[in-house]
Amino acid sequence: MALPLLSSADAVEEAFYDAMRRGDLQAMMALWSDEEEVICIHPGGPRLVGLDAVRASWESILSAGAVQIEMAGVRATTGAMLCVHNVIERIRMPGRPPSEGVQCIATNVYVKGPRGWRMLIHHAAQTEQTDAPVVPPSGAVLH
Amino acid sequence: MALPLLSSADAVEEAFYDAMRRGDLQAMMALWSDEEEVICIHPGGPRLVGLDAVRASWESILSAGAVQIEMAGVRATTGAMLCVHNVIERIRMPGRPPSEGVQCIATNVYVKGPRGWRMLIHHAAQTEQTDAPVVPPSGAVLH
Repeated sequence: MALPLLSSADAVEEAFYDAMRRGDLQAMMALWSDEEEVICIHPGGPRLVGLDAVRASWESILSAGAVQIEMAGVRATTGAMLCVHNVIERIRMPGRPPSEGVQCIATNVYVKGPRGWRMLIHHAAQTEQTDAPVVPPSGAVLH
Repeated sequence: MALPLLSSADAVEEAFYDAMRRGDLQAMMALWSDEEEVICIHPGGPRLVGLDAVRASWESILSAGAVQIEMAGVRATTGAMLCVHNVIERIRMPGRPPSEGVQCIATNVYVKGPRGWRMLIHHAAQTEQTDAPVVPPSGAVLH
């Protein structure tokens, strides 16, 4: 497969979630850096280090079908060679209503290499709430 | 309090875990960037954005006492202005043996500002295992 031109971290991120939604392992793996030691942490899972471990995990996940995932609330910090996005992920479970979906928060790190931007770290973790409420719920005390 | 000279992300990270171990809120908050919009995600918690929300969370945590936390397995990627560390955290619960401790994986992002390096993102999430076994267990993961 011809590697896509990934001229920004935004482009990698869009392609990353698109590959999940399409269940496309080849497209997914084309997005990861092959220059640096990549890290992937699926929600609740161990730290996977290196392309072989990361590929095996995605092969397992995507062999079960496409992932119904939407991203929201991206907060980005961009450097010359590194870019960090913090992202809300909303995942629908097959056959269940959207209200029973799962929410995760992901920190995605991108690195610029000789062939453009690639994914370096994907760290996703499940959460009850994605963003803290502006007004804390009554009954909650800070200390 | 005079702000410490933080000449590297390593120095910030060491001071960050040290502040937790000492239960020192002032030292903890001196480590965060006041130039960028900081993000902190405690294990299972919502995304806290901005110094006020981050300070309130640490005030709540540290008012309950020092955190018995050790870091291990740091994997670092360093840019000119951004630095990303992925860290294994081992947390002991008060009054319980070390074998009943909790393990987390954290992605810590540091940014270089006019006064040296500061913390930009702390994203911690609980995990059953910290590093992947050579042979992954069978079973589905979320993604």
